[in-house]
Amino acid sequence: MRQLDTTLAHITPVDPAWRARASARIEQLTMPRWALGRLCDLAVDLAGITRSLRPAVERKTIVTMAGDHGVCAEGVSLFPPEVTPQMVRNFVRGGAGVNVLARVAGARVVVADLGVAADLADLVAAGAIIDAKVAPGTANLALGPAMSRGQALQAVEAGIAIARRLAPSTDVFGTGEMGIGNTTPATAIIAALTGAEPEQLTGCGTGIGEEQRRRKAAVVARALALNRPDPRDGLDVLAKVGGFEIGGLAGLCLGAAELGRPVVVDGFISTAGALVAQALCPAVADYLVCAHQSEERGHRLMLERLGKRPLLDLGLRLGEGTGAALAMGLVDAARGVLVEMATFADAAVSEAG
Amino acid sequence: MRQLDTTLAHITPVDPAWRARASARIEQLTMPRWALGRLCDLAVDLAGITRSLRPAVERKTIVTMAGDHGVCAEGVSLFPPEVTPQMVRNFVRGGAGVNVLARVAGARVVVADLGVAADLADLVAAGAIIDAKVAPGTANLALGPAMSRGQALQAVEAGIAIARRLAPSTDVFGTGEMGIGNTTPATAIIAALTGAEPEQLTGCGTGIGEEQRRRKAAVVARALALNRPDPRDGLDVLAKVGGFEIGGLAGLCLGAAELGRPVVVDGFISTAGALVAQALCPAVADYLVCAHQSEERGHRLMLERLGKRPLLDLGLRLGEGTGAALAMGLVDAARGVLVEMATFADAAVSEAG
Repeated sequence: MRQLDTTLAHITPVDPAWRARASARIEQLTMPRWALGRLCDLAVDLAGITRSLRPAVERKTIVTMAGDHGVCAEGVSLFPPEVTPQMVRNFVRGGAGVNVLARVAGARVVVADLGVAADLADLVAAGAIIDAKVAPGTANLALGPAMSRGQALQAVEAGIAIARRLAPSTDVFGTGEMGIGNTTPATAIIAALTGAEPEQLTGCGTGIGEEQRRRKAAVVARALALNRPDPRDGLDVLAKVGGFEIGGLAGLCLGAAELGRPVVVDGFISTAGALVAQALCPAVADYLVCAHQSEERGHRLMLERLGKRPLLDLGLRLGEGTGAALAMGLVDAARGVLVEMATFADAAVSEAG
Repeated sequence: MRQLDTTLAHITPVDPAWRARASARIEQLTMPRWALGRLCDLAVDLAGITRSLRPAVERKTIVTMAGDHGVCAEGVSLFPPEVTPQMVRNFVRGGAGVNVLARVAGARVVVADLGVAADLADLVAAGAIIDAKVAPGTANLALGPAMSRGQALQAVEAGIAIARRLAPSTDVFGTGEMGIGNTTPATAIIAALTGAEPEQLTGCGTGIGEEQRRRKAAVVARALALNRPDPRDGLDVLAKVGGFEIGGLAGLCLGAAELGRPVVVDGFISTAGALVAQALCPAVADYLVCAHQSEERGHRLMLERLGKRPLLDLGLRLGEGTGAALAMGLVDAARGVLVEMATFADAAVSEAG
């Protein structure tokens, strides 16, 4: 049996009884009913996911997965592909946005190479990154499938393996990514899954202008027409129009759900990974906490499809796991509300009349 | 000269040169231009306020000011007035929402009695709260002015004195409050300052139903018609339809601005305090960071009047300083971006083509 099938068989929807217990406790806390709003909702989610009224959230790991994209040949990005390995080295040195925001949140960043088109053997040898390279970059999805079905499976299983490997030191996972060009496959994935028009979904990525954006939308439309991904088959969508790091992110979501741990999902690309995971196993969505509403145009439809409201809306469009890092603070806050607040009875405070 | 006049004379708009220096640095950081969105904006704000590219934000103090309200006699709240002192004791014991969220944010909570209608002498003697009581509760603003002009001045000056007293141990201030009935004066303040209809601005406070909400709106309308506060005179608005803790919060904003320190403003009541401060000194707004969009109906207009976009939108309606505590994490994050991220040159990352 494939590792993927084992994982899919082990993912169960969260237990509504634990959600109900958490709600009942929150109703007794010294505040007007549900007065901490979305923080109360998040506390209930965490209790349901972890099956505990004292959800473990202390050890936070943001997994930043990197990969390159053959579609860069179509001129879809403002940055050259060599930025992918350059940024991997920046992550390792601790100078990138995700490093800074993870430090603030008390999270660690683990970097994994799922498909960078550069030699990172020195970083692997030094133990600075996880080597899960499927291939040095995908093929150009505008000319054919981005990868084979076998490679898609390999990427997803690599993500599951990373979740399992990090499980002994991780209470909450966060997702993040780096891959010049990867808003193009992410856009193609949401278009493939929903049938929505690429022109409506295609955004400006790292900051391209309107003319380049239209060209990018046309590339996505061409890729879909050429490859015809099957929206009922997550692996097919990933293989035809995805990316290695996106497959890895899907696997990380599945692996975390199998472990019964929350996954804080970052922005546009990370949510594309979550959508591939959902296509493989709808119950995975119960384990996902969507960090933020990205500036990227297609993100709103992605979140709708996952059935999630994002926690933050700060105009972020960086990726890397930066939004996930910011949302980790809200995870700590929600846990604090559930575990540390006094009840009306504890504090001898009168209830509403 | 009154302490208030001295403070008002010392508040200057933030220095645009420091804002420009911060923007120039952010443009060089290893990310697409302004890709951390509102976090970049906040970093610029912090640099401007503190006149530094390494803004001090480590020592965070949330000042939760408490007061009672004669208008409770009109049946405007779901909770009885004795909850105000009960919650003050809950704050002192560390069991309230603000205590929990402040712990998560690494902030301390300082509780000040500006006008609680109960004997808190034991807490004052124990050094557990700051005694700045103007009087044991305001008068009923539906029947006449909530307080005298002298009391309004006393409340604002008490807030300034608290900012000065805490200054040696505080880099960033946060505001918070507790006072059963205080959404009524807060609503009256924004109605008085803008001329907007109380019916449009009056919300459900701690959770009253529609009929009670309409009665509350009528109370606000009656208070304005009877007391006729002068919108050009912040002290008059505070005296006629305000509250002691709201005056204290206005003073805290002014005192922090005089010191050149940021103030993270919590929700509906705290923003009413900020509006009184703005009426006294428009430049104070430069020093305010608005934490969140409250669920309370009139809050949107308050934020517009301050010219601020809130950082968070989590359906909070608790007050106490809970939203300010949550936003403190974003203040740390923004500082981290400005100070700790590598530049393109540092990290040898290629810039956009």
